Amino acid sequence: MYPKSFEQLVGALEALPGVGTKTAQRYAFTLLNKTEKAQELAEALAAIKNLRRCKKCGFLSENDLCEICNDSHRDISTIMVVASDQDLTAVERTGQYHGLYHVLNGTLSSTKGIYPEDLNLETLYERLDGIKEVIIAISPTIDGEMTALYLDKVLKKYPLKITRLAYGLPMGANLDYADDMTITKALIHRQKFEEQ
Amino acid sequence: MYPKSFEQLVGALEALPGVGTKTAQRYAFTLLNKTEKAQELAEALAAIKNLRRCKKCGFLSENDLCEICNDSHRDISTIMVVASDQDLTAVERTGQYHGLYHVLNGTLSSTKGIYPEDLNLETLYERLDGIKEVIIAISPTIDGEMTALYLDKVLKKYPLKITRLAYGLPMGANLDYADDMTITKALIHRQKFEEQ
Repeated sequence: MYPKSFEQLVGALEALPGVGTKTAQRYAFTLLNKTEKAQELAEALAAIKNLRRCKKCGFLSENDLCEICNDSHRDISTIMVVASDQDLTAVERTGQYHGLYHVLNGTLSSTKGIYPEDLNLETLYERLDGIKEVIIAISPTIDGEMTALYLDKVLKKYPLKITRLAYGLPMGANLDYADDMTITKALIHRQKFEEQ
Repeated sequence: MYPKSFEQLVGALEALPGVGTKTAQRYAFTLLNKTEKAQELAEALAAIKNLRRCKKCGFLSENDLCEICNDSHRDISTIMVVASDQDLTAVERTGQYHGLYHVLNGTLSSTKGIYPEDLNLETLYERLDGIKEVIIAISPTIDGEMTALYLDKVLKKYPLKITRLAYGLPMGANLDYADDMTITKALIHRQKFEEQ
């Protein structure tokens, strides 16, 4: 029904996650009516061809080393292992962590068939010299927990402290609505008042 | 946090309707991981630069005249006036209409300040010679009704039949959930059983 080039744009937009034909058409009409926005998007798509993974930590980067690995103000004795770029930025946003990161780009998964060799792990082992602490900061999902346990097992062979983000009630949570596992973890790891 | 070219892609994607930073980031990661999809999108964006409006009816087209206006099998004595490209394709999808269209590219709106001169109306008046019937097929919203009434008033000056899509209960509707206005319209315009 629509001209071929319009249908192609709709088709290309349908590749985005969770976008069906109806939404893709709405996007396409917006891009059609805002030509400078369409131009910006086309240029941005061309520019990401230069994006790669930091050779040291695996984070997105325009150069061989990412901005964080290149930052001389970071504490180079600590590495926080995260599953994804998004998780890294979530921690970085807090401004509370000043060490280095290591991005696994995934988690182990028996259902999806993701094994240790599919993750960015080799480069982690190569950079453990001189590291005092590895913080495992992987989301406590089933796959995440499996990955954390695996990492803990492997990293125990190295002379370093292995820690993980604390489990407990999220700030602002309603105890009544928290799941049993979270309450159990919060109880087991209960903290002294002054520690909070 | 992210490399500049990634942030630019996220920013460009945020121009899409209803897309916030979180969704734009999800889209950007998908495009980053599926390079051939990103390439397709970039090419499709380049191709829509050639899209324009049909000089006769105002529908999207790659040429001066759209496919429908160019189709010699259509009934050239009937014009259906629709508000948007999407409305045209909704009617066309049914395969029940074989006449021509005229796309207004909007509806009158006192709140948004859209007046007759802002719509694709001049070209409509220019093509009324030899037309036997104009079907007004504009969504029955407040602005749509105002536009339909305006069109009816203007078109009455021409020697042609003016009709509009029937109002009534949508197929599959539950009478109990239909709004009063729809039930009232369905009652006033009740049809003989054999007409259905």
